[in-house]
Amino acid sequence: MANALDRLGLAAGDRVATLAWNGYRHFELYFGVTGSGRVVHTINPRLAPDQVAWIANDAEDQVLCFDMTFLPIVKAVWSKCSTVKHWVALCDADKLPADTGIPGLVSYEAWIGREPVGYAWPQLDERCAAALCYTSGTTGNPKGALYSHRSTLLHTFAVSMPDALSLSASDTILPVVPMFHVNAWGLPYAAAMTGAKLVFPGGALDGKSVYELIEGENVTMAAGVPTVWLGLLNHMAEVGGKFASMRRTVIGGSACPPAMIRTFKEKYDVTVLHAWGMTEMSPVGTVGTLKLQQSRLPLDDRLAIMGKQGRAVYGVDMKIVDGEGRELPWDGKSAGDLLVKGPWIISQYFKAAGGDPLVDGWFPTGDVATIDADGFMQITDRSKDVIKSGGEWISSIDVENIAMAHPGVAMAACIGITHPKWDERPVLVVVRRAGTNVTAAELRAFYEGKIAKWQVPDDVVFVDAIPLGATGKMQKVKLREQFKGYVLPGA
Amino acid sequence: MANALDRLGLAAGDRVATLAWNGYRHFELYFGVTGSGRVVHTINPRLAPDQVAWIANDAEDQVLCFDMTFLPIVKAVWSKCSTVKHWVALCDADKLPADTGIPGLVSYEAWIGREPVGYAWPQLDERCAAALCYTSGTTGNPKGALYSHRSTLLHTFAVSMPDALSLSASDTILPVVPMFHVNAWGLPYAAAMTGAKLVFPGGALDGKSVYELIEGENVTMAAGVPTVWLGLLNHMAEVGGKFASMRRTVIGGSACPPAMIRTFKEKYDVTVLHAWGMTEMSPVGTVGTLKLQQSRLPLDDRLAIMGKQGRAVYGVDMKIVDGEGRELPWDGKSAGDLLVKGPWIISQYFKAAGGDPLVDGWFPTGDVATIDADGFMQITDRSKDVIKSGGEWISSIDVENIAMAHPGVAMAACIGITHPKWDERPVLVVVRRAGTNVTAAELRAFYEGKIAKWQVPDDVVFVDAIPLGATGKMQKVKLREQFKGYVLPGA
Repeated sequence: MANALDRLGLAAGDRVATLAWNGYRHFELYFGVTGSGRVVHTINPRLAPDQVAWIANDAEDQVLCFDMTFLPIVKAVWSKCSTVKHWVALCDADKLPADTGIPGLVSYEAWIGREPVGYAWPQLDERCAAALCYTSGTTGNPKGALYSHRSTLLHTFAVSMPDALSLSASDTILPVVPMFHVNAWGLPYAAAMTGAKLVFPGGALDGKSVYELIEGENVTMAAGVPTVWLGLLNHMAEVGGKFASMRRTVIGGSACPPAMIRTFKEKYDVTVLHAWGMTEMSPVGTVGTLKLQQSRLPLDDRLAIMGKQGRAVYGVDMKIVDGEGRELPWDGKSAGDLLVKGPWIISQYFKAAGGDPLVDGWFPTGDVATIDADGFMQITDRSKDVIKSGGEWISSIDVENIAMAHPGVAMAACIGITHPKWDERPVLVVVRRAGTNVTAAELRAFYEGKIAKWQVPDDVVFVDAIPLGATGKMQKVKLREQFKGYVLPGA
Repeated sequence: MANALDRLGLAAGDRVATLAWNGYRHFELYFGVTGSGRVVHTINPRLAPDQVAWIANDAEDQVLCFDMTFLPIVKAVWSKCSTVKHWVALCDADKLPADTGIPGLVSYEAWIGREPVGYAWPQLDERCAAALCYTSGTTGNPKGALYSHRSTLLHTFAVSMPDALSLSASDTILPVVPMFHVNAWGLPYAAAMTGAKLVFPGGALDGKSVYELIEGENVTMAAGVPTVWLGLLNHMAEVGGKFASMRRTVIGGSACPPAMIRTFKEKYDVTVLHAWGMTEMSPVGTVGTLKLQQSRLPLDDRLAIMGKQGRAVYGVDMKIVDGEGRELPWDGKSAGDLLVKGPWIISQYFKAAGGDPLVDGWFPTGDVATIDADGFMQITDRSKDVIKSGGEWISSIDVENIAMAHPGVAMAACIGITHPKWDERPVLVVVRRAGTNVTAAELRAFYEGKIAKWQVPDDVVFVDAIPLGATGKMQKVKLREQFKGYVLPGA
């Protein structure tokens, strides 16, 4: 595949994009693209086509490789992706449909099949770019986080350590977390470093499929967001399943409900490792592995600690500060803005988008957290505006901006409402423009084609006024208080 | 202590030497000296005073810190160390003798006691020097191996990984291997990185002291050379001791007799991790952690694998070559010169002593080894210790390991003796275990069925002691000199 990239004339540093599930071809792209000096750019296929096109253009992707599942997205965007010269379908030659309309579309296997097997891997500057992920920030357009070979290697060491994810050649790792989601938390790299077996779920993320894959492949460690584990646990309860080999699971993306940690432990003898990170952090910042004294506590006490986001892995520095930037004590009570620093944390976004994000050399996470005397960090207030739904982030501002484009809307605020399955779901709070009478159904329909379906607010509530702060900004904290206990339709 | 170095006016990169056991002051020196930008130079106190002086002069040490045990060495060398301006005794002020004759001698605690507690640690170039160790080569003067902050950090990550030494905050590590011996194999750094508890034995390395320290401090992992473990096992057999918390031990420095690996496992449920490395390699190159399939084999099969030196840790590349430099297969049978490559392996000695040591970018270890299909490397001999008999190679280590399994043998060395017909023939030099009276005939009979007939030593010679080097290794060069002109029976 690296030979095929050479044949295309791709220069060092050129971006090769993917729209793909977790699979072996995606894994080949991870290493072939980066090992030959190019940059693998994993695009989240759950984004709306316009967002996909915007990101591909911003990244100036030269090649885009996609799973056939995502052919509809590619059909919708190819004409808008001005820099993409080559389209590759991740399939065998005989699986390629005849008339996709996508110019020059080639199957992955035909594309690489004509190349020699050997490749002279170049010696690369360790600080050159290896991988690119976009984060859907709270404000404005998505911004790219660009990882170097160096930052990736150091991150891989750190996540593989015994007190982090403890990965070895005796492990079989199932990354349910997608490879398009911050490189599946670095697990493809960690498996390569440690010699662990890697199992790919493809697009089959329902409880039954995941359970059968775990048992069929003797998975010892699986990683994913709480939503997927909910499906897994429901299925296991139904069929009375047990795990033969699985002993631990890493949960991140959003906070794991304590009841889930308890169920995994009590019913299945599986240790949940809570982990926390960000796209800007490669992504791992903390892992909740217990210390020796903590591991000897009664289960309830252990569960309370395991519910926190965990200790910083080696290489990551954390601090919490108050509104004036003064550092707060690690007492497990003082909550402040969480800032981080380390060799795999970005110092700026791709193309310097959004300017310098650092505060005195520290990256502000946008999360509010406490840190206890043992170094366990706990996020108390999740970043104020972002809505975390099923492990994915929904930018409230994106949702609001679209609403604001509707002629019937005077002001709109999007907030997250607690949801039993998705953790949070967006609700749009709207002040109608005087003299109009727009309905909730009309507004929800207005989102069609503008953002992904799962990003569309579950409900629209009309109010007379939205509380504003001194500088004219909407006070979402007040709004959330006002909607505390609000029950979503169908929830 | 870093403040005290500043007050002395020490420049960045200046060397601070130590002559010290494993203790907390030595540990402070490791981090204070390197963290403030200077280089910690650990000198082996088992060297002859003239060698100590030669090394201190070659390193251009500015400060020399020593344990009071080593005062006699310092008294013998201070006038010959032309660059050392400051002598520090690692003790309390009231423990300092009045009239040592050493100019300006100060106690460590008095020296650092007047300094403020805080220190503004500089941001250092990661490629600047951090630590210096001399290797006592078999030919010529000792040569220095200089480690950078970068190489040390990467090495520390690699040795802490699950398939290497698997170190975590729940471990209590006892480095019996001295901190003057290649930085105690990197364990002081690894403990700091992982948050493990570190236990220091000082100079008390006898079986009883080591055993009591292990039990008293709940040590989970200990590291040392076979000689020290022999004393420990003897003591435990005497007192009928068991380990409450120790579960694994890392053995390196020289090959561990298979009988010892078995005793640790069968009698004490302690897994021996065979490790191999060199001063020039920071030092770790391989660790013998079993792979999943191997761990399911019967004990005897496992022990056979554990007797090998192990798999390369991530970051180290290995190859074996024949006399013409052609790479040999990893079949577990083909033996060849072992070469290594990696980010913590030196590319040249300190001050470029001895010229360029590399062969096409690879460091020649001077060991002869096989590598099997699982990547397990086994040293069959030192290049210079191999016995060449009738065109075939006899591994002196194989011959010694069998002898060491005999209950009447305390120590055994096998050397090649010139033979008119066969070129060389093996002779076994044995120190009897106290209270036993094993004969040469009995020992030769003991080899039957264990190795080929032509590999059995032609003669067994009993001695009171085998000469040991400063690092506890048998000095075969001396032994060969001693046996020069020895006439074999029947030759």
